[in-house]
Amino acid sequence: MSWINISKNSHFSLANIPFGIFSTTVQSKRIGVAIGDYVLDIPGFVRNEGLTGLDVNTRNLLETSKALEQQTLNGLASLGKPVHSGLRRYIQEVFKSDGRYPDVLQKNSQLQQKVLVPMSDVTMHVPFEIGDYTDFYVGCNHAYNCGCIFRGPQNALQPNYYHLPVGYHGRASSVVVSGTGIRRPKGQILVPADDGTTQPELHASKKMDYEFEIAAFVGKSNNLGEPVPIGQANDHLFGFVIMNDWSARDIQAWEYVPLGPFTSKNFGTSISPWVVHTDALEPFRCEPIKRKESDPKVQPYLDESASEFSPKTVHDIQMSIDLTISGESHRISQMSAKYMLYSFPQMIAHHTVTGCNLRVGDLLGSGTISGTESGTEGSMLELSQGGKRDVVIGSVTRRFLEDGDTVTFSAVAGDAATGLVGFGTLEGTVLPAAK
Amino acid sequence: MSWINISKNSHFSLANIPFGIFSTTVQSKRIGVAIGDYVLDIPGFVRNEGLTGLDVNTRNLLETSKALEQQTLNGLASLGKPVHSGLRRYIQEVFKSDGRYPDVLQKNSQLQQKVLVPMSDVTMHVPFEIGDYTDFYVGCNHAYNCGCIFRGPQNALQPNYYHLPVGYHGRASSVVVSGTGIRRPKGQILVPADDGTTQPELHASKKMDYEFEIAAFVGKSNNLGEPVPIGQANDHLFGFVIMNDWSARDIQAWEYVPLGPFTSKNFGTSISPWVVHTDALEPFRCEPIKRKESDPKVQPYLDESASEFSPKTVHDIQMSIDLTISGESHRISQMSAKYMLYSFPQMIAHHTVTGCNLRVGDLLGSGTISGTESGTEGSMLELSQGGKRDVVIGSVTRRFLEDGDTVTFSAVAGDAATGLVGFGTLEGTVLPAAK
Repeated sequence: MSWINISKNSHFSLANIPFGIFSTTVQSKRIGVAIGDYVLDIPGFVRNEGLTGLDVNTRNLLETSKALEQQTLNGLASLGKPVHSGLRRYIQEVFKSDGRYPDVLQKNSQLQQKVLVPMSDVTMHVPFEIGDYTDFYVGCNHAYNCGCIFRGPQNALQPNYYHLPVGYHGRASSVVVSGTGIRRPKGQILVPADDGTTQPELHASKKMDYEFEIAAFVGKSNNLGEPVPIGQANDHLFGFVIMNDWSARDIQAWEYVPLGPFTSKNFGTSISPWVVHTDALEPFRCEPIKRKESDPKVQPYLDESASEFSPKTVHDIQMSIDLTISGESHRISQMSAKYMLYSFPQMIAHHTVTGCNLRVGDLLGSGTISGTESGTEGSMLELSQGGKRDVVIGSVTRRFLEDGDTVTFSAVAGDAATGLVGFGTLEGTVLPAAK
Repeated sequence: MSWINISKNSHFSLANIPFGIFSTTVQSKRIGVAIGDYVLDIPGFVRNEGLTGLDVNTRNLLETSKALEQQTLNGLASLGKPVHSGLRRYIQEVFKSDGRYPDVLQKNSQLQQKVLVPMSDVTMHVPFEIGDYTDFYVGCNHAYNCGCIFRGPQNALQPNYYHLPVGYHGRASSVVVSGTGIRRPKGQILVPADDGTTQPELHASKKMDYEFEIAAFVGKSNNLGEPVPIGQANDHLFGFVIMNDWSARDIQAWEYVPLGPFTSKNFGTSISPWVVHTDALEPFRCEPIKRKESDPKVQPYLDESASEFSPKTVHDIQMSIDLTISGESHRISQMSAKYMLYSFPQMIAHHTVTGCNLRVGDLLGSGTISGTESGTEGSMLELSQGGKRDVVIGSVTRRFLEDGDTVTFSAVAGDAATGLVGFGTLEGTVLPAAK
């Protein structure tokens, strides 16, 4: 399909064309596009008349806006969906074997040398300047599993759960890109006291965990006081990444009443570097798999039944978790992003219903996504049933993460025949707590 | 004390010198300093050799950094305490009657015309670019009062309350400056159903409330993974504002389990425009007034007893709340900022103990501060005892805020004899919910 060699197993097929921010030893931070094993250096491409074939309006806008010379994707996203959708389609055309613009790059080996950077040579960065990061809790099986662990199956889900996408404000400053080591946090945890009770003590977390989430970047702002109607909410999305919402369960259990998780989450949140554009995931729309007992009658401001996408409001993305211990890697979970009780447009409609303003670059996490079967758990808390059960991983066991463990998430839609649309991998290694 | 006329009742005496961001009909956004009824146009002052007397190192740094030409205080704060402390002291000297630099401004009436802008001519703006906003809950009487309303006096405070400064991540995008109207939010609230139960419904909040807090701006960053030790935490503060953490109590009650307040708080948070520098409040340090039952033995990472300031870890700031209804203004509460169970350095030490990075411009709220007596409540929830009691205000009553009500906070330290160090006023009017 493309004149450059793209492996069938590559997450970055011609059908994907995700955007990211990269640098190399000789190139400063800049916008790139992933294609196969290469990164297209976008500002280099633009400076060398790479946009020649693009329709004149879009080209003018891009060339005059300087958005493509920024060190984040905020400027590009701010230009609006017609522009970034148009740019993505144009780049697909440039790389197509039978594309309309062979002179731009296919027949210009000198330019290829300049602007196609081997992926092995690049360092990736957080793709957006993130104003605010919000984390939801729409993975209904995860919410149910955690509720069972903490409150038992009768009260697993709170009364509000089927009426609104529960969420909370997260910490934007500590969002880091894949590959960043995550230091085990010290915090207040309850430890056994001599008299048989427990006492809080500052201690390195003994219950460090991962959480696998899908996350969206906002691509269109709304003004303070002006809610985004559900029918327009999809237009406010730029694209998606996968996310590891690292959590210290013992710190969380002690601190979280009555105002929610705080230091148990703010020590690091990892995201994958390539932002998969909403357009790339359109072919993989599907119906969400809700829990049996869930009530489908949401309030009108959350009702998507009149949406052009209904009932396919989420995406069929296959997610997998690997844990690498002492150099040996093991697949420990596999699940699908279908298991979301609320869609991203519903999250946006709810987030803004009171008038809250979202800004371009804001990050919205789905909350941990788990399936219903064994082996589909999105956190180790669920695998180990609250730390009460050993999880056998190769020749060792775990109840929570240990220092040196590497957590690798991967997610992909589609199949090799038509080209994979994937997120690549999201990796993080647990570093020992500071002395 | 100053050669310009400063009213004895002015919050902006020579002892204050707060920083802010202002504009006028002819001047774009820029840094200013409040003095009496004037605003000193800082970039104008700098361009006209206003810094002549400043010590050479500080002057060079300021002139080469371009920090003073920014449209926020982030650049100035980033230069470090020696620089902004030095600049503040220098400006005090410039305005002193017997100051060392009479030629700079006192004897230069032409420059006075240029750079002293009447306060009535300026529009104020949010002073910092706020990366993250965190709201704590350290006002122990407020926490106790709310706990009594929701859970009764036996369980008013959660077990963690005396061990750590409870806090949560807030919404940075909707922080607005004094004078901004606040639209009554619509959100999910529980309403009575025909069968005697309650049902959630999208509705304009019926329980809109204010919360009076002291808030601090971070002036020094820490790296991810590197906690700020309690002994250094004070150095990370730039200065203080007063804050109204508007709250929709009915939305909050329904949504807040298990992850904390979300849409009930994210529709707007108002701050006063002038940032009172930490140095200006040093003379007003005092011991906090903790609750009788509180346990003073905090974990070592929160222990301030070895601090140079101990035991004077908070400030004696007098706070007052006025409510204006149909043009008539009434004082409804007065309290002191002494009633904080934890100091701002303790909040910083706790916030970062897990390794969370704070950035220059981050905003930290104290949580609502109430006293112990009637008439010292920092929220209407407390005044009306959860909406169960009419609060008589002039010739009308309130249980929560109604459309058109204007809430005015004021806070000041010191006395007229030596010069007030005040925050001015923080004002906001409730606008009707959107149709």
